[in-house]
Amino acid sequence: MSLQNPVFIPGPTNIPEALRKACDMPTIDHRSAAFGKVFRPALEGVKRILKTATGEVFLFPSTGTGGWEAAITNTLSPGDTVLAARFGMFSHRWIDMCQRHGLKVQIIETPWGQGAPLAAIEAALRADTGHSIKAVLATHNETATGVRSDIAGIRRAMDAAGHPAMLFVDGVSSIASMPFEMDGWGVDIAVTGSQKGFMLPAGLAIVGVSRKALDAMESATLPRTFFDFRDMARTYAAGGYPYTPAVGLIAGLARSVEMLEDEGMEAVFARHHRLAEGVRRAVAAWGMRPCAATPDLFSDTVTAVVVPEGCNGTDLVKLAADKYGMAFGVGLGEVAGKVFRIGHLGMLTDVMVLSGLATAEMCMADLGWNVRLGSGVAAAQDWFRGSVPALAMAAE
Amino acid sequence: MSLQNPVFIPGPTNIPEALRKACDMPTIDHRSAAFGKVFRPALEGVKRILKTATGEVFLFPSTGTGGWEAAITNTLSPGDTVLAARFGMFSHRWIDMCQRHGLKVQIIETPWGQGAPLAAIEAALRADTGHSIKAVLATHNETATGVRSDIAGIRRAMDAAGHPAMLFVDGVSSIASMPFEMDGWGVDIAVTGSQKGFMLPAGLAIVGVSRKALDAMESATLPRTFFDFRDMARTYAAGGYPYTPAVGLIAGLARSVEMLEDEGMEAVFARHHRLAEGVRRAVAAWGMRPCAATPDLFSDTVTAVVVPEGCNGTDLVKLAADKYGMAFGVGLGEVAGKVFRIGHLGMLTDVMVLSGLATAEMCMADLGWNVRLGSGVAAAQDWFRGSVPALAMAAE
Amino acid sequence: MSLQNPVFIPGPTNIPEALRKACDMPTIDHRSAAFGKVFRPALEGVKRILKTATGEVFLFPSTGTGGWEAAITNTLSPGDTVLAARFGMFSHRWIDMCQRHGLKVQIIETPWGQGAPLAAIEAALRADTGHSIKAVLATHNETATGVRSDIAGIRRAMDAAGHPAMLFVDGVSSIASMPFEMDGWGVDIAVTGSQKGFMLPAGLAIVGVSRKALDAMESATLPRTFFDFRDMARTYAAGGYPYTPAVGLIAGLARSVEMLEDEGMEAVFARHHRLAEGVRRAVAAWGMRPCAATPDLFSDTVTAVVVPEGCNGTDLVKLAADKYGMAFGVGLGEVAGKVFRIGHLGMLTDVMVLSGLATAEMCMADLGWNVRLGSGVAAAQDWFRGSVPALAMAAE
Amino acid sequence: MSLQNPVFIPGPTNIPEALRKACDMPTIDHRSAAFGKVFRPALEGVKRILKTATGEVFLFPSTGTGGWEAAITNTLSPGDTVLAARFGMFSHRWIDMCQRHGLKVQIIETPWGQGAPLAAIEAALRADTGHSIKAVLATHNETATGVRSDIAGIRRAMDAAGHPAMLFVDGVSSIASMPFEMDGWGVDIAVTGSQKGFMLPAGLAIVGVSRKALDAMESATLPRTFFDFRDMARTYAAGGYPYTPAVGLIAGLARSVEMLEDEGMEAVFARHHRLAEGVRRAVAAWGMRPCAATPDLFSDTVTAVVVPEGCNGTDLVKLAADKYGMAFGVGLGEVAGKVFRIGHLGMLTDVMVLSGLATAEMCMADLGWNVRLGSGVAAAQDWFRGSVPALAMAAE
Repeated sequence: MSLQNPVFIPGPTNIPEALRKACDMPTIDHRSAAFGKVFRPALEGVKRILKTATGEVFLFPSTGTGGWEAAITNTLSPGDTVLAARFGMFSHRWIDMCQRHGLKVQIIETPWGQGAPLAAIEAALRADTGHSIKAVLATHNETATGVRSDIAGIRRAMDAAGHPAMLFVDGVSSIASMPFEMDGWGVDIAVTGSQKGFMLPAGLAIVGVSRKALDAMESATLPRTFFDFRDMARTYAAGGYPYTPAVGLIAGLARSVEMLEDEGMEAVFARHHRLAEGVRRAVAAWGMRPCAATPDLFSDTVTAVVVPEGCNGTDLVKLAADKYGMAFGVGLGEVAGKVFRIGHLGMLTDVMVLSGLATAEMCMADLGWNVRLGSGVAAAQDWFRGSVPALAMAAE
Repeated sequence: MSLQNPVFIPGPTNIPEALRKACDMPTIDHRSAAFGKVFRPALEGVKRILKTATGEVFLFPSTGTGGWEAAITNTLSPGDTVLAARFGMFSHRWIDMCQRHGLKVQIIETPWGQGAPLAAIEAALRADTGHSIKAVLATHNETATGVRSDIAGIRRAMDAAGHPAMLFVDGVSSIASMPFEMDGWGVDIAVTGSQKGFMLPAGLAIVGVSRKALDAMESATLPRTFFDFRDMARTYAAGGYPYTPAVGLIAGLARSVEMLEDEGMEAVFARHHRLAEGVRRAVAAWGMRPCAATPDLFSDTVTAVVVPEGCNGTDLVKLAADKYGMAFGVGLGEVAGKVFRIGHLGMLTDVMVLSGLATAEMCMADLGWNVRLGSGVAAAQDWFRGSVPALAMAAE
Repeated sequence: MSLQNPVFIPGPTNIPEALRKACDMPTIDHRSAAFGKVFRPALEGVKRILKTATGEVFLFPSTGTGGWEAAITNTLSPGDTVLAARFGMFSHRWIDMCQRHGLKVQIIETPWGQGAPLAAIEAALRADTGHSIKAVLATHNETATGVRSDIAGIRRAMDAAGHPAMLFVDGVSSIASMPFEMDGWGVDIAVTGSQKGFMLPAGLAIVGVSRKALDAMESATLPRTFFDFRDMARTYAAGGYPYTPAVGLIAGLARSVEMLEDEGMEAVFARHHRLAEGVRRAVAAWGMRPCAATPDLFSDTVTAVVVPEGCNGTDLVKLAADKYGMAFGVGLGEVAGKVFRIGHLGMLTDVMVLSGLATAEMCMADLGWNVRLGSGVAAAQDWFRGSVPALAMAAE
Repeated sequence: MSLQNPVFIPGPTNIPEALRKACDMPTIDHRSAAFGKVFRPALEGVKRILKTATGEVFLFPSTGTGGWEAAITNTLSPGDTVLAARFGMFSHRWIDMCQRHGLKVQIIETPWGQGAPLAAIEAALRADTGHSIKAVLATHNETATGVRSDIAGIRRAMDAAGHPAMLFVDGVSSIASMPFEMDGWGVDIAVTGSQKGFMLPAGLAIVGVSRKALDAMESATLPRTFFDFRDMARTYAAGGYPYTPAVGLIAGLARSVEMLEDEGMEAVFARHHRLAEGVRRAVAAWGMRPCAATPDLFSDTVTAVVVPEGCNGTDLVKLAADKYGMAFGVGLGEVAGKVFRIGHLGMLTDVMVLSGLATAEMCMADLGWNVRLGSGVAAAQDWFRGSVPALAMAAE
């Protein structure tokens, strides 16, 4: 594995130089005013990225998994029911966590490659006339299959059903890379991590919490201390933190928001779409297709490429690492072997994406797959050439 | 707060140059073999520092607080009883966490400034003839008061009582700075964090677990997922990790162990003792005394200095930060205002300690305390001059 | 210009992570023993890379240009004659410098794209029966044209002519990337810089000096102080330096030698050759050719690509920078516009090279050149796939 | 030597965190527009620091010594006469350089510890009725003795004598730390380096050049190429550079100017004065005195402390390094052994200075000098306490 090549795993992403430096800081006293100078901007910045005006943001020295646990333990009680669709490894894992915490999970099994099944969710909610479902869990971007679900649609389904459940969204591999509207979509808890759209090292769970979820917090009885929103809220109000914060990552987060906003969130989303489209054109040129069933489900942060019959995606990932020092993602769970994944989120350039595509092609040839060298690269080149924003050419 | 001055909070510590660089690394694929090259040495190294030949080590992207939670949720069940002495803010917080997780805590209230009460612990265990106490919780170094307790003594008390409870030790501000013997003392779970004796940024909970605790894990029913030892053990065995690891901190941890072992653990402990003694001589020269009641309790990583009647330690800490850009620790809980704390753990030099003492003196004079400028410095200088190890002078 | 894309200028090169960190160091006292610990290994390491057992190495806070000036001012006197061939911008500049320092330069004009003309050199030396020529100047790798000259051949020519002149070699863009034999080839002064094969930032002139050149130093009367070998030799002998050294770069140089030797110099040269060959295959697939006239002249560190009639290489370089954030080199002097240059020296991977080739292709298409997208990439992919060393696949 | 202790050599200084990071950058193409974005602000910033509205600034990958050489070789011709006073090692070295370059140096020998002898300079100029003296060389701050000379006074002397010579000033250890007025004082060439008041690593010579000196350049015949102002001026005008620039240091220089101007130059000068005064009070408390003969000569960047009869300053410097890992400066030349030097320039805090003073005291005690531990520290503490700017306490 070469430290010089970009990574194409769907997170952690390639860390921009400026964020490396923002995180790498000497020790400051986290009980002093100096801490507030990095902490406040980070919290306020994340609220803007999440598009929440009324919610709170809590930062845990943890990961997205910890964020999920914070979401459920702060708002639910043993025996509570949650509704969730399972259509990939990460939706599966959240369901598993709920079960391990003594929650009842009403699972809507959905084929991998599909997104959140809006009609089924609405039907389930309508059927729950006693409102025993306390929360709907939704994976915005299923990293295992490269599927983006329609969170606004889930909100509409919930509203159509007139159901008071909370809406919890795993936005780990979507937030800051694809449009996200916490208030607009009525999201009660939004979970992400530092190592995806925020382009930082792993180590921070970033959790947005609505007023409604904060109210639920008061009566929730699942035990929690490390992840307790109450301790967070109380100490934040006093400019503090309930334990030792990961100051460097928080400083990095503040800087990350600055970078994102300097580029402009619309431009960030457009860039992700443009690069993703380049990858998809290469995939098509290889005669393959994304795991995501239909174009409306295509993720702009990761593409799970379905490999030809008789081929094994995991072989490609292993060969890329061993022979060319480049990291792609393997297929997980039901699609293990059937796909390999190309992460294309965070701060990437056309040039970097082309290097990933070219490497994938070499591996395919090495493995004897029926792919012409340069074919995917050419398709992506053609797309990139024509789609570079005018601004990028003028500026910088 | 100046980034140029050393910090004298009792953690996070001043991060050595080499560890800053070890942590600041580009993204690698944590599912590739490259990860094992930093992860394995970190795990093995921590085992050596903890002095455990048979236990396991788990690393969580978290903090010491998370380490405590991992300890109790993986080994205990709701309604279980634990025995703990309360004699400082950190022993208090662990007790509070247990209560919030539905455990019964048999609390031995102990004056702040005292250490773990061996006789009372033994008595409590002898009285528990039904062995309802599942674990004894002990804070090795109470960071709030600068008191080091006798963990070997607790083990002897437990053995004397013939009690089968597990022994859980908070070694957050002791491990890697003061002698610690996980196997020798029969410690079942040892908890620390990256930001103390390991001299790294905050963000890693480091947990050593004995075979006995691993056995208890199988029947424990407190809910946990993020902190679940089982997921850790299973994925580690396959060279993996249950979620995205904090790779930079883990790389830093491997490097930290290397630094510590290059110096030699005995030399590390001796250095901490020597610097602590310099601080204590300064304190005596100021006509003050440590909060720790007797010399056998003196911590080598932090000194809580009892301020004169009518003075407020918090004023000193605030003034030091505002006027001189230097960080000390305030008194917490019962000793708020009554002490200020000088952290002296991690990679410090005589020169750095003297700068802290000199600054404290300026603040005392500014606040009108009855202290002669240079008096504490002179006492420490005299001690440091005479106690520099011969080796240090010869080598380097 | 994106900081994320690799550069393909023929130096400075992409700086490896480990060298970035080695250079970025806190201030140490350059008059203390600590300095010697980085300085000695750097000097000794450079001698091994230059393959000199008897020569000295001097390091100037300067650049290759400064190294040239050190070479001539320390060994020659006003009015002295030197012999040089001019076949590119860098051979031209050294000649110009000699003239500005009052030396007579006997110039052998040679077409750009050719290398050092061995026969003409030998003839000129034979004709100089009075031995007025004091030194022969040779550019090992002419960076402007991507031509590698035969230094061993020059030595043979000098020996055949029985001429006592010194041999000064500009190895700026060859040393540490292509075979170099200071003692073996009878080189009297070898000049390079930190920012090429040593993969460091610019800022150090690295000069190897033979015994014969050191003897010539005694009688040389060209004025010099900053570049004076005598001050260097005298202070080095005492473990010092004549003025403030660039300690970070020197530390980086020591680390660079370590990296090179860990890889093995033969492997380093083979890697450069392999990557260069990939570039040349792409160039051929584009229907173009290197500026270097014949394969024996092909440089393994830079390829000057002759662009088709009616095309302008400078347009490509400008477009690559403006539109794709990638840096290639323009043509200089006689070949301005007629070529663009692809630097492929330093620590590069196959993957990185492919990203450069893919970008060049996009620019060609943008400029309407008659090149099929993916064609050069495919040729390089094919070569890279088949030529990855077995070792690389097994190891790491 | 510990990397954790501050250095107290009179340069290179302790590099602030932000400047470490500014210098440590990936490779950019120095022939692209990206270079201009760091280069322009650096040049313009230096002009403001030098206080020149009409002069030019040139940056050489070199050191202050190189800056001296650039000054003389670009403006003078062999056989020209310069006037210089010798009163320390650095004034001596510049004189030596002139002699080695074939200039006649009219030397005014002046006792070490004195500053530039204004009356003698005026007398020499008046006596030079034929105006054979082409330049007056002045060392603004003689780093060897800690003496600041009166450059405005030299200008007045030159004007009083009605002499047309140019005025060249070595401001290596004064510029950016003590007031300097290039235009106001009629300085024709001002020389400094990156590693002093600009707080960067060594590696850049920074040279300010007046119009008059640029005119002199046209007829100067001393040979030069690397240091040639003409190449610099020509390439700068086109946004370029005559060879590979030290881009990282230039980026650091731009950032350094930003830091200095954010603090405010008057505040920077006041800070240097305040810290220097603290050192001097400690020196007085030790019963010693600065080498500088009178208070008007006291340098605010370095204090050469005259050690008691029978003591050897070099012993203290060696002991501080070996035993305490701290760097002071030895006495040089005529004052070798008779002084030790405390550098107090660059970004220092009260706290850091106290650590240096405390260490010096320990060494004195170790060496058996008659000094009371804590005495100098107390004197400095007393001064620092009372002189902290109100602003510093309010802000930050």
